[in-house]
Amino acid sequence: MTPHRPAMRRAPPVLGCLIALLAAAAPAPAADRAERTAARLRDQALAGEAIAYGFVSELTTRFGPRPAGSAAEHAAADWAAARLRALGFDRVAIEPFPLVGWTRGEESAEIVGAHPQRLAAAALGGSPATPASGIEGEVVPFDSLEALRAAPVGSLEGRIVLLNQRMPRVAGGYGALVPGRLFAPGEAADRGAVALLLRSLGTGTARFAHVGSTRYRDGRVPLPSFALAGADADQIERLLALGETVRVRLHSQAAHVDTHSQNVVAELHGREAPDEVIVLAAHLDSWDAGTGAIDDGAGVAIVVAAAELIARLPQRPRRSLRVVLYGAEEVAQPHTPETGGAAYLARHAAEVGDHVLAMESDFGAGAVQALSLPPGVAASDFGRALYRVLTPMAIVPSREPPGRGGVDIAPLVEAGVPAFVLRQDGSRYFDFHHTADDTLDKIDRAELDQNVAAWAALAWLAAQTGADFRALSAAEPAE
Amino acid sequence: MTPHRPAMRRAPPVLGCLIALLAAAAPAPAADRAERTAARLRDQALAGEAIAYGFVSELTTRFGPRPAGSAAEHAAADWAAARLRALGFDRVAIEPFPLVGWTRGEESAEIVGAHPQRLAAAALGGSPATPASGIEGEVVPFDSLEALRAAPVGSLEGRIVLLNQRMPRVAGGYGALVPGRLFAPGEAADRGAVALLLRSLGTGTARFAHVGSTRYRDGRVPLPSFALAGADADQIERLLALGETVRVRLHSQAAHVDTHSQNVVAELHGREAPDEVIVLAAHLDSWDAGTGAIDDGAGVAIVVAAAELIARLPQRPRRSLRVVLYGAEEVAQPHTPETGGAAYLARHAAEVGDHVLAMESDFGAGAVQALSLPPGVAASDFGRALYRVLTPMAIVPSREPPGRGGVDIAPLVEAGVPAFVLRQDGSRYFDFHHTADDTLDKIDRAELDQNVAAWAALAWLAAQTGADFRALSAAEPAE
Repeated sequence: MTPHRPAMRRAPPVLGCLIALLAAAAPAPAADRAERTAARLRDQALAGEAIAYGFVSELTTRFGPRPAGSAAEHAAADWAAARLRALGFDRVAIEPFPLVGWTRGEESAEIVGAHPQRLAAAALGGSPATPASGIEGEVVPFDSLEALRAAPVGSLEGRIVLLNQRMPRVAGGYGALVPGRLFAPGEAADRGAVALLLRSLGTGTARFAHVGSTRYRDGRVPLPSFALAGADADQIERLLALGETVRVRLHSQAAHVDTHSQNVVAELHGREAPDEVIVLAAHLDSWDAGTGAIDDGAGVAIVVAAAELIARLPQRPRRSLRVVLYGAEEVAQPHTPETGGAAYLARHAAEVGDHVLAMESDFGAGAVQALSLPPGVAASDFGRALYRVLTPMAIVPSREPPGRGGVDIAPLVEAGVPAFVLRQDGSRYFDFHHTADDTLDKIDRAELDQNVAAWAALAWLAAQTGADFRALSAAEPAE
Repeated sequence: MTPHRPAMRRAPPVLGCLIALLAAAAPAPAADRAERTAARLRDQALAGEAIAYGFVSELTTRFGPRPAGSAAEHAAADWAAARLRALGFDRVAIEPFPLVGWTRGEESAEIVGAHPQRLAAAALGGSPATPASGIEGEVVPFDSLEALRAAPVGSLEGRIVLLNQRMPRVAGGYGALVPGRLFAPGEAADRGAVALLLRSLGTGTARFAHVGSTRYRDGRVPLPSFALAGADADQIERLLALGETVRVRLHSQAAHVDTHSQNVVAELHGREAPDEVIVLAAHLDSWDAGTGAIDDGAGVAIVVAAAELIARLPQRPRRSLRVVLYGAEEVAQPHTPETGGAAYLARHAAEVGDHVLAMESDFGAGAVQALSLPPGVAASDFGRALYRVLTPMAIVPSREPPGRGGVDIAPLVEAGVPAFVLRQDGSRYFDFHHTADDTLDKIDRAELDQNVAAWAALAWLAAQTGADFRALSAAEPAE
């Protein structure tokens, strides 16, 4: 009984043409052997020979939501490790680390008074429980974090702040507004508020709360803090515009629990330089309402499938490829050891000097559209060969630098490991991100395979070359 | 503080052009005075002069969900009556009737066992409560009601049936599959099942349960019956395909309560033939998770705004226009008096012979695309004039007959009152219908106004003509 999935069965027209064209094309005469192999890996993935879709389907179906430190996250890690062993990785390890986890429990949000209505809302990660009787207060809206910061200390005594910032559908929209999620609870608390409502950081019109972690202060979130669906923030705003006082009651049984998380580390040993390690990163944990298909089941499937295509080759590449499926990404707080990225760095500190490259896939399954390389790498023979292989898939050089490469690999990058970034089409990502609607049907199979194609080609070329990415990153590019 | 609503601010290109063209067009020389007035009403609505959007905004904002017989439905009726009086209707009455209402209470649905996961599910209207400890059983899927009916009696002892019918995005798709919602609980009970899961009758991919009433047997729904989001039905199907047994636990505190509902009746008295009544129908009640914006706040706004445009004219039309905002539409069961439609017929039985026409708006705010008239009416001078006024708005004669015209007016139609039907674009209606996502932002303002334009022109022409719609409906059309 095959589910009917029209959106997944047909490749977008551009991708469909590319698959046909690339399958028919003979290798360019000038391409060297590594480049020809990279092109073949790419074409295999585009032709649907990669295991990515089946992997993310089974991960999200068997385990559903996988909150950091939950039984589902642990079970997913065990399953992934077993599957990676079966796929022929040379060494697979589960590396546990301690974690203070957060559980949601029952919760509710409602307008009370003359116009009682339930609200579509969900506590932000780390938010403390309310008293059993709930918290009630009059809502005071602010359009921006700056506007909230302009309110005098004490001016919000007993109130519930609604931070009603609106997110545009543009690259960088999320990053520009996420400080509101991180800092508004503290700013509201400083001014006497008893709770915070955050208009969801999202682009969709479906009535879901988009959750996410907020920032701790002295080890805790200072106020009960809820994400509110955009439609419900609008509803409150309209009631206020009608001249009504809006009182909201919030209830939450959220709790912190001592638990653990883990990274799953699976390596293809390099044939000639096994100590030179390339990290291919994604994260196994997810938020707790959806099944974490785009965040980050897709990334897990992309890096596993890309490495698995390379593992099928008659021999290993020169350098080691290390797939790291991180735990506890979603709960990252700065300067705490309680994330997969920090735990990996702590455990592998002695080898980090030999890590030649780190890359992370954590932006859904939208097609790769651009590549960010350090300028010196982009201008090198390696960089030029890489672009030759990626260009036919409609991938261009990015105007953005690689930056820290992602939450999981940021600690490695801060320790000096170069990062490359395959930048994806994220125009629909924030329709679903951190909501109950992050489910398998949001993944387009052809676009997922296009990601695998780019990752396999890049990972192969990077593992097969002798190029020193650290040195190239430090050097000025040739004119 | 004006909310940012890009989707509402711009008219679709076609409508935008029409507004410009129609505003500039001089009346055709052949058009008689009534037809010119109809065209002017149409153009006023297209130009944004109708009150529809404000009306549905305030209705859905103030009262949120308005389940049949709830305090919110009662308050919405009081508000609507007061507003209609203020708008200048000649007579406004609230007509109450008794109702056994249904309340949802707390509820949950989850997969238990090796792969525990919460499900996005909601009890169907009328579904009985489960025991406090819930109901648990192994899921058995069926692709169609016919497949369920083919299962032997007793073969589903202790099981939970999943009716996994998939709805296409096509006119008639809902009607073809709604018998599954009505009859599957009884069919499952007959075969020994303990509960029913119904894959949502909907076309969207957002993870919402689409609820709706199911059919009573001996005054009750025979089994706890839940609607399940499509993504969750897929999840169960995939788990079964992986060889897993899927056990589900359902919990519901649903209850029936003695209450009342009401119809709000607001009339513009006819200048020459006040006893000849034209009913313009919509319903005030809604399902309980969304705010009933498309079902049926839009319809309420359309009929009110159309009548209000006519009320602004220097004199009343010949016949009476009666706006009826029904209560308790969503809980309609056949052959019970507990609906607004049945209550209206019972109360107005003596005048029904003078009702010359009934029309209902209950399909969201999608643009009107076609008009269903009885053939004899379509071929009459009245019908030809009507088409001349509607055609410029991209409205064509429908291939479908008017049928019973809608749930609210069906009792009138069965009692012999002719119905006309303005058929709307419903291609997105079932993305939101009967879900928490039925909220104001799903209404396109320009399309809403196009509906008002069509309704105002039609209502005016029908109220101003002397044509006998009953006689024309009974006659064969002229060749």
